[in-house]
Amino acid sequence: MADPATLSPAPLLKDELDIVIPTIRNLDFLEMWRPFFQPYHLIIVQDGDPSKIIKVPQGFDYELYNRNDINRILGPKASCISFKDSACRCFGYMVSKKKYIYTIDDDCFVAKDPSGNDINALQQHIKNLLSPSTPFFFNTLYDPYRAGADFVRGYPFSLREGVPTAVSHGLWLNIPDYDAPTQLVKPLERNTRYVDAVMSIPKGTLFPMCGMNLAFDRELIGPAMYFGLMGDGQPIGRYDDMWAGWCTKVICDHLGWGVKTGLPYIWHSKASNPFVNLKKEYKGIYWQEELIPFFQSVTLPKDCTSVQKCYIELAKQVKEKLGKVDDYFNKLADAMVTWIEAWDELNPSGASKSAALPNGASK
Amino acid sequence: MADPATLSPAPLLKDELDIVIPTIRNLDFLEMWRPFFQPYHLIIVQDGDPSKIIKVPQGFDYELYNRNDINRILGPKASCISFKDSACRCFGYMVSKKKYIYTIDDDCFVAKDPSGNDINALQQHIKNLLSPSTPFFFNTLYDPYRAGADFVRGYPFSLREGVPTAVSHGLWLNIPDYDAPTQLVKPLERNTRYVDAVMSIPKGTLFPMCGMNLAFDRELIGPAMYFGLMGDGQPIGRYDDMWAGWCTKVICDHLGWGVKTGLPYIWHSKASNPFVNLKKEYKGIYWQEELIPFFQSVTLPKDCTSVQKCYIELAKQVKEKLGKVDDYFNKLADAMVTWIEAWDELNPSGASKSAALPNGASK
Repeated sequence: MADPATLSPAPLLKDELDIVIPTIRNLDFLEMWRPFFQPYHLIIVQDGDPSKIIKVPQGFDYELYNRNDINRILGPKASCISFKDSACRCFGYMVSKKKYIYTIDDDCFVAKDPSGNDINALQQHIKNLLSPSTPFFFNTLYDPYRAGADFVRGYPFSLREGVPTAVSHGLWLNIPDYDAPTQLVKPLERNTRYVDAVMSIPKGTLFPMCGMNLAFDRELIGPAMYFGLMGDGQPIGRYDDMWAGWCTKVICDHLGWGVKTGLPYIWHSKASNPFVNLKKEYKGIYWQEELIPFFQSVTLPKDCTSVQKCYIELAKQVKEKLGKVDDYFNKLADAMVTWIEAWDELNPSGASKSAALPNGASK
Repeated sequence: MADPATLSPAPLLKDELDIVIPTIRNLDFLEMWRPFFQPYHLIIVQDGDPSKIIKVPQGFDYELYNRNDINRILGPKASCISFKDSACRCFGYMVSKKKYIYTIDDDCFVAKDPSGNDINALQQHIKNLLSPSTPFFFNTLYDPYRAGADFVRGYPFSLREGVPTAVSHGLWLNIPDYDAPTQLVKPLERNTRYVDAVMSIPKGTLFPMCGMNLAFDRELIGPAMYFGLMGDGQPIGRYDDMWAGWCTKVICDHLGWGVKTGLPYIWHSKASNPFVNLKKEYKGIYWQEELIPFFQSVTLPKDCTSVQKCYIELAKQVKEKLGKVDDYFNKLADAMVTWIEAWDELNPSGASKSAALPNGASK
């Protein structure tokens, strides 16, 4: 029998969720998260020099992968995993065996709500993921499934069951997630506004998905959560999560799943260097003017009935339509296919879930 | 020179905005709004028995129209204005000569923000209307034009100018705007959550527009703000604002204008009788299951370059597609045309703004 002194509600989804953290340094930031993260399993993806020792505070249950591990596990397919960029985190999604993923950056700390209480970000993400989304019609009182809220007058009853939630996108107090030009123009701007809302992003609407504080249903949407080719040897950085967000949203829209944004907040402690960021971003800043219209107009055929099929089709269209923007997108399209092959190799049961798509059919 | 003792910033848009209030009772509720509304002109639309005297507190500048006035001014076209239903408020939009309209119900009081300060709802609506909207891409930090906020990383720069805002939809603390079934199921639910956000409703997404606390740019979208045929002699009630919202949103999407929702809150004091509401709503509750798909799939031809043209085209499609749902929609489609005729008659300059559409061409 459990010691009555330690009796407390079991952490939600304790055995069904992995926390994925990309890092290049010791994970002291976990100390602050201990009350919330310690019951969960961590997957740490070490970026950069694999010989460096990353210290993880005592008491956490974790596995750690460095570049050597990634190369060993994926072989030639390791080429789809970015190096020297936090995009490498998606390797953690691939090796996880859990239904849910929460990923967080190591410069993110526990934020406080307006009453001064520590925000259990993970718990809020889990609530978001476990309740339905409503992408087909806007509810003006925000998440209708929250306590104290509901669907307002004029909301069709046939849509009130909602649809499964695939993604929960959380926000940031203190340092907002700005691009380099905005950082440069507003170096002192801090986000102090706590907006007490969670909402579904409507079907057909794209959004800038930030990977800093993000949870998703890996079984539903995992294979679309590829963070692209960034960093070492690539002409672009800081668009890894954006790329994943656009692909994911288009696929969720196609398959009828929901994406939420809003709560929970984390405390983003440190602005990255805007000059360094500008160098990483500048191609993305003009490419995105072509990428957004592409993703806004993309349609997936009806026979794309699994995430894998959708993703392979998307890779095909990326090559066709964006290859002419820059040869980088041909490389990226190939890497998208490699990513799915690697995913299915590491997740044979997940691959079999993908309806009639046999392993390798996508090659 | 102004008395220094009374020096204060001039109220925003004092000579460019009318406040439209539909009512059947004395307007004591204005006492609470006096600090915010007194500088503005009021248009009171008296519903029900025209012989009843409506008392308006001293010091307000207003004009009042009862049913006799509406019949006299519009003649046979008065048939498009509802009777014994707050839908009659749209007559006030038509007779206004101002650029902006704010409309509020007489059971709505001044709400307090979380710091305990009275919320100047009108001022917030004006801010919403005077700053652009961003319907083409979702900004996760909500309204990017608010102090302390901006566009986040990954937001295309070409979309950061935004588009003109046509509608500002405000919310309600205390009694939420629920339909009768939800009122019956949750008689004690109160909205206590102050969500400190304003956001654009994305292009292509419909929402349930509530007329209780609503502002709009009359010059831009006025002719689409028709509240339909409700109340006396009609098979339906409580769908007036919903109807206006669906039509307005579809036309704003077509013409490239924005619709915002969120702040400001008003204090909604009294829940209407759910049994009475159920009787008014029940046809709407099942009709809306066909109306929503209709509005979701409606497309307006390119030559619909004015609100009037769009609205006449919409009336045509309502007749074609919804006439078979119920004969009521044939009547409503005719009333939509009558409304535009009456609007253009009362607003000849507004009619001439409607590009190449000559007066009466829509008959």
